[in-house]
Amino acid sequence: MQPINPNVRGTFPPPVMEARRWIAGKSFPPDRPLINLSQAAPVDPPPEALKQAMARAVMEDDATHLYGPVLGNQDLRDELASQWSKAYGGTIRPAQVAVTAGCNQAFCAAMATIAGPGDEVILPLPCYFNHKMWLDMQGVATVGLPTDDDLLPDPERAAHLITERTRAIVLVTPNNPAGVEYPPALIAAFRDLARAHGLALLVDETYRDFHSSTDAPHDLFTDPDWDETLVHLYSFSKAYRLTGHRVGALMASEARLAEVEKFLDTVAICPPQVGQVGALWGMRNLSEWLAGERLEILARRDALIAGFQRLPDWQLLGCGAYFAYVRHPFDAPSDTVAKRLVDDAGLLTLPGTMFGPLKPEGGSGQAEATLRIAFANADADGLAEVAQRLAAITP
Amino acid sequence: MQPINPNVRGTFPPPVMEARRWIAGKSFPPDRPLINLSQAAPVDPPPEALKQAMARAVMEDDATHLYGPVLGNQDLRDELASQWSKAYGGTIRPAQVAVTAGCNQAFCAAMATIAGPGDEVILPLPCYFNHKMWLDMQGVATVGLPTDDDLLPDPERAAHLITERTRAIVLVTPNNPAGVEYPPALIAAFRDLARAHGLALLVDETYRDFHSSTDAPHDLFTDPDWDETLVHLYSFSKAYRLTGHRVGALMASEARLAEVEKFLDTVAICPPQVGQVGALWGMRNLSEWLAGERLEILARRDALIAGFQRLPDWQLLGCGAYFAYVRHPFDAPSDTVAKRLVDDAGLLTLPGTMFGPLKPEGGSGQAEATLRIAFANADADGLAEVAQRLAAITP
Repeated sequence: MQPINPNVRGTFPPPVMEARRWIAGKSFPPDRPLINLSQAAPVDPPPEALKQAMARAVMEDDATHLYGPVLGNQDLRDELASQWSKAYGGTIRPAQVAVTAGCNQAFCAAMATIAGPGDEVILPLPCYFNHKMWLDMQGVATVGLPTDDDLLPDPERAAHLITERTRAIVLVTPNNPAGVEYPPALIAAFRDLARAHGLALLVDETYRDFHSSTDAPHDLFTDPDWDETLVHLYSFSKAYRLTGHRVGALMASEARLAEVEKFLDTVAICPPQVGQVGALWGMRNLSEWLAGERLEILARRDALIAGFQRLPDWQLLGCGAYFAYVRHPFDAPSDTVAKRLVDDAGLLTLPGTMFGPLKPEGGSGQAEATLRIAFANADADGLAEVAQRLAAITP
Repeated sequence: MQPINPNVRGTFPPPVMEARRWIAGKSFPPDRPLINLSQAAPVDPPPEALKQAMARAVMEDDATHLYGPVLGNQDLRDELASQWSKAYGGTIRPAQVAVTAGCNQAFCAAMATIAGPGDEVILPLPCYFNHKMWLDMQGVATVGLPTDDDLLPDPERAAHLITERTRAIVLVTPNNPAGVEYPPALIAAFRDLARAHGLALLVDETYRDFHSSTDAPHDLFTDPDWDETLVHLYSFSKAYRLTGHRVGALMASEARLAEVEKFLDTVAICPPQVGQVGALWGMRNLSEWLAGERLEILARRDALIAGFQRLPDWQLLGCGAYFAYVRHPFDAPSDTVAKRLVDDAGLLTLPGTMFGPLKPEGGSGQAEATLRIAFANADADGLAEVAQRLAAITP
């Protein structure tokens, strides 16, 4: 091959695509079909009325086919500012809101404005693989913050990792992959730590709508100066089942969004219009429906917990929003175990090694011993079946 | 503000958004409405049948709402490989094709795999601003290749710019902003130069469908080893009027696409599904319609040329595909002139300073003296009106 950027070559291939290769070409018996627990993606289509709203925009609104503003359509930015201000009890102005082609893009755009080659960013472990990949490719060093069995990051432990090259701390809550919800006080403690050291605190709340509490998940937006420290990330993909339409959001200071605009102009030009139409329509019309979706996901969570209570050799470390993070009982590394689960149990999960390809000092070796189960894609019956299949192959 | 990446702060804001601010809040008299010649974007919606195909996918095909493969849907990759192989008289396999959320993203993705901080990339001047912005933000040095009044880059001149840090040469043909079509022999000469030095040659053919010739625009794909050197970029935005749907393409070696997949997984996850549906339907059904579109653009080109023949003080340096690149007769820098054209003539163009914010050694100072006119957005009457308005204010 021609010239290659070593930072890109040096990171790992997309885990979800890698997992797809494990099942490619394989056939699964009709009495034990594959249960895909690898990707956090709703499998059902959006509600009929939302589909109709998008189809109507395609047929009747010419603007759907044209470039929009780089930072997203004004109506959607306005709606986000308004609903977020209310939900979080703070003040978020439309100028502090950008729309992106998905939450991954929001992370990349925000992080590009924060950290460059040689800088360091702190990620609690296990971490979301796409965050690590982006940092690798940008020449930014990922500093892993090990967690104990409660999977909650410790601000004091984080403080010891801060150097003069540290630029940001990233929190994902409810967490991907760990499934744990960070308590508001913990999030505030990280905000204080970041502020004290002049760092950015990125809080990725992709799974916010499936939190076990309906209270505001943190009070960071109630601080009038929130945008000096906080960068908030959100996804419409899960809430309204819009994964294929690529739409997410980013909230930060207006000054930072001026820098984000440069990044998004080159990488995206604008978010896809149909996705923006769908997100706006969803925000205006689907709050009740979404409340029902949340209850369904919480019911699945209960079903998963019940299933693991019948599996004493498995340890459920975290379980919330779309994910369970479990310790497996096998004497083998987790990537070997994940492949074996495909063949022996018809279950596609992702191994812990995909969420912490670091060797954290003082780490517990969790990556080798754990699996992520994206349980939200299976219903209660399916999750009972998952537990049965795991019981059948447990040593 | 919190930490800021100096590479991002160091680049310029999006020119098209900057130009939008020049007209924001201004009113234009009814007898002299604004003619927007700033952005290369079709203003009419796609053909009715194409809209219907997209709306049908939204309503009837659940896959439209789900994540697809990172590198794009297989059917679209297959169709691209097949039609491109035929059009260019070469062999392009589906595994050498990726779909992206627009051609800008294709450029960023390909370039990310090629060049990193401290590397150098050669861009002929004037250059497409988003290319320069991306390189700036990645810490890659842009080495400007000055051109003379024919606006064609010279491979021998380029050879003198190559250093041990050079990683790639970028060609855009038909050129944005210069409007010139690079002759096949010139493109081949750059391929030879790139190959001899182990560089990548990126050829951005966003405006390919509006070339004045229907022959293959170059013969690089006829070389069985094309993918050792060539990276080809394409956009569906102009051909099928899909700017708001974000869909483009990238062709390169399978090994490079494995690296591109890492980048796209983090920045996009997958291209928007509705755009992919539209692009595929267009490729399968709109070739005759697109041929008519091309003739219309060529007619507009003729109208623009005729208009400038009546403007002896203006010099038409390049004119093709969507763009004319002109030397203005004013004794003022081009950004001042562009703003004056908004107020005095109701014309929004982009100044040459936006396409070469470099100070090329041996350059002709063209940036200060030139304007880009995205003429394809105006019809023949509109272009006659443009010439009249320019005549009225010419000193």
